[in-house]
Amino acid sequence: MIIQRIENSRISTFDPNNFSFGNTFTDHMIICEYENGKWGEVKLVPYGPLLFTPAMMGVNYGQACFEGMKAYKDKDGQVFLFRPEKNFERINKSAKRLAMPEVTEEMFLDGLKALIDVDRNWIPHGEGMSLYIRPLIFATEEALKARVSNKYMFAIVATPAKSYYTEPVSVKISDHYSRAASGGVGSAKAAGNYAASFYPTQLAIEEGYEQIIWTDDATHEYFEESGTMNVFVRINDTIYTPPTSEKILDGVTRDSFIQLAQKNGIEVKIEPIKVKDVIEAQKNGILKEVWGVGTAVVTTVFQALGYNGEKLELPTISDQESYAVMLKNQLVDLQNNLSEDPFGWRVLVEKNVLETV
Amino acid sequence: MIIQRIENSRISTFDPNNFSFGNTFTDHMIICEYENGKWGEVKLVPYGPLLFTPAMMGVNYGQACFEGMKAYKDKDGQVFLFRPEKNFERINKSAKRLAMPEVTEEMFLDGLKALIDVDRNWIPHGEGMSLYIRPLIFATEEALKARVSNKYMFAIVATPAKSYYTEPVSVKISDHYSRAASGGVGSAKAAGNYAASFYPTQLAIEEGYEQIIWTDDATHEYFEESGTMNVFVRINDTIYTPPTSEKILDGVTRDSFIQLAQKNGIEVKIEPIKVKDVIEAQKNGILKEVWGVGTAVVTTVFQALGYNGEKLELPTISDQESYAVMLKNQLVDLQNNLSEDPFGWRVLVEKNVLETV
Ligand SMILES: Cc1ncc(COP(=O)(O)O)c(C=O)c1O
Ligand SMILES: Cc1ncc(COP(=O)(O)O)c(C=O)c1O
Repeated sequence: MIIQRIENSRISTFDPNNFSFGNTFTDHMIICEYENGKWGEVKLVPYGPLLFTPAMMGVNYGQACFEGMKAYKDKDGQVFLFRPEKNFERINKSAKRLAMPEVTEEMFLDGLKALIDVDRNWIPHGEGMSLYIRPLIFATEEALKARVSNKYMFAIVATPAKSYYTEPVSVKISDHYSRAASGGVGSAKAAGNYAASFYPTQLAIEEGYEQIIWTDDATHEYFEESGTMNVFVRINDTIYTPPTSEKILDGVTRDSFIQLAQKNGIEVKIEPIKVKDVIEAQKNGILKEVWGVGTAVVTTVFQALGYNGEKLELPTISDQESYAVMLKNQLVDLQNNLSEDPFGWRVLVEKNVLETV
Repeated sequence: MIIQRIENSRISTFDPNNFSFGNTFTDHMIICEYENGKWGEVKLVPYGPLLFTPAMMGVNYGQACFEGMKAYKDKDGQVFLFRPEKNFERINKSAKRLAMPEVTEEMFLDGLKALIDVDRNWIPHGEGMSLYIRPLIFATEEALKARVSNKYMFAIVATPAKSYYTEPVSVKISDHYSRAASGGVGSAKAAGNYAASFYPTQLAIEEGYEQIIWTDDATHEYFEESGTMNVFVRINDTIYTPPTSEKILDGVTRDSFIQLAQKNGIEVKIEPIKVKDVIEAQKNGILKEVWGVGTAVVTTVFQALGYNGEKLELPTISDQESYAVMLKNQLVDLQNNLSEDPFGWRVLVEKNVLETV
């Protein structure tokens, strides 16, 4: 690893009690360039701009995929990653589907640990606080031909993240727009999937919803995901989530919720969820909870489902009775080293990693 | 328009008889930045790199769309664009679907004309020669939040283009992968659509094909497009092409072929094309031609269709009998000012445009 540290940290400009998520960047970033069929050396450099022309293939043909993950600081200042190997596996799955070169485990994990260690002062401690980390791969060759790029950049950048708390939201069950095609790239964290979702989401907002529940593009009869989260439905005391597929992202939070639920003795059914069954359960009063899960906010609870022009309310349920809240709290405690880790999900980020590289 | 001309042209390094398409760039480019809800002034500047960090939203969330068009130089050195208003309309259609700001007609057309005029020496003259022009819009805000960007760049870059000639190719009719979802972004020239197509195309190449005929993602029973082209099928003496839709790009070449065919008195049916009907026509010997059309190569003729593991050969047909060849030649002659232009498709690029801006 090539190390080029900043001369003066910007940390004094960072107020952990008053910052905006997503556009405050830590002092450093990881970059690594791919050329002539192989990755070069990983570099830790000051966060900042690089030179690209508008002919950069990444913005012309969309060969770009990313990950989203977090580092958590406990009361003693120890820093942990959460299941980083899952993100490593997934970025390569995404890369493969987009015909991009895969990254090595060393590039990904050592890069991650070096960056987080060096910038550990940027990780806020406290309820809901963390460092959001963005590994990404994008095509950098300058060329105007719709073909696979010959040059890429792997990068990791990071931004301090705040409280997870989000208000319960109303979601529209999509009856026209969709985020993934059969035989498409829905299971990849492909850059283009996000751009495609913005306009339908804006339309849903204009109709009085905050988010969309994506359904299958062919029939709109099955739940897929919600916004940029996987989705869970609780009918009576059973929870349901659709199986991952080439159209559904294999979320780390989803998998963790499933395992935590099972550990709590809750029945989890991983099977296709029919819109019609959810609507019927709502009418019959047995639909207890519907929620989305993902790294960013852990859980967003839904208070109403928009379907066929109707806004179907979900019952108000106490935090004590809520599976969504219980599982979220257990997960957050585990991530923040406030509870045991029977699954081996926490990965300690050693201090002074760079001295040993 | 803000004009910043290069000091020394790179034109002496450009050999019109020996250059590679797509990575030789002309001296200048157009750029224009969007911020605080509006576009700034259009700038003509030397082609070259700009500063972007890996947190640039364009490569993270794929808000990026583009156009592909050409300028042609006739024997007297006059330069023409071909139906540029179609590309202007389409880039805005793409922008809208990706929740990006639309560009104005002035930005687009004046930018185009200024760039082409200033760099007119870069346009090679001769059979199949042209200047390929790439207008694009991409998100430039630095932020790690999956939401609409607040900053964008509109840019136009250009590269000299060579002979259209391509060998007839074998194409695989897709039975699993797809390029567009119902309710998705197939009708937009969205960056992400191209990245999504590379891996399936690589698999088709491994199976002995050069390209894919995309079919609908739900059933794979209907033709959609071919590679990055619209598709035409000739059965007996009727030609068929699928109607444009939210899954099929509204190609300028497709529309021009339809109008030219009609002018030639050929029956054109714009209707869904069933894979099964094409296969049956092939078995019955009435399938005469299948070809793709697009700005880059105008026409690619198909010599065989891969279907269900079989490679179905198309008949060899003389250039005199071929509709594909006839229509291509008529279009190319019109584009190059070698024939009349009854449609009003050619747009002359005036000299010394900048002096009047
Ligand atoms: C489309 C989509 N679905 C689901 C998720 C949830 O995945 P994870 O739990 O790994 O963050 C994400 C990412 O946050 C996503 O972008
Ligand atoms: C997916 C796709 N279809 C069709 C076309 C053909 O469109 P046009 O004739 O406007 O170049 C293109 C662009 O070249 C394309 O990218």
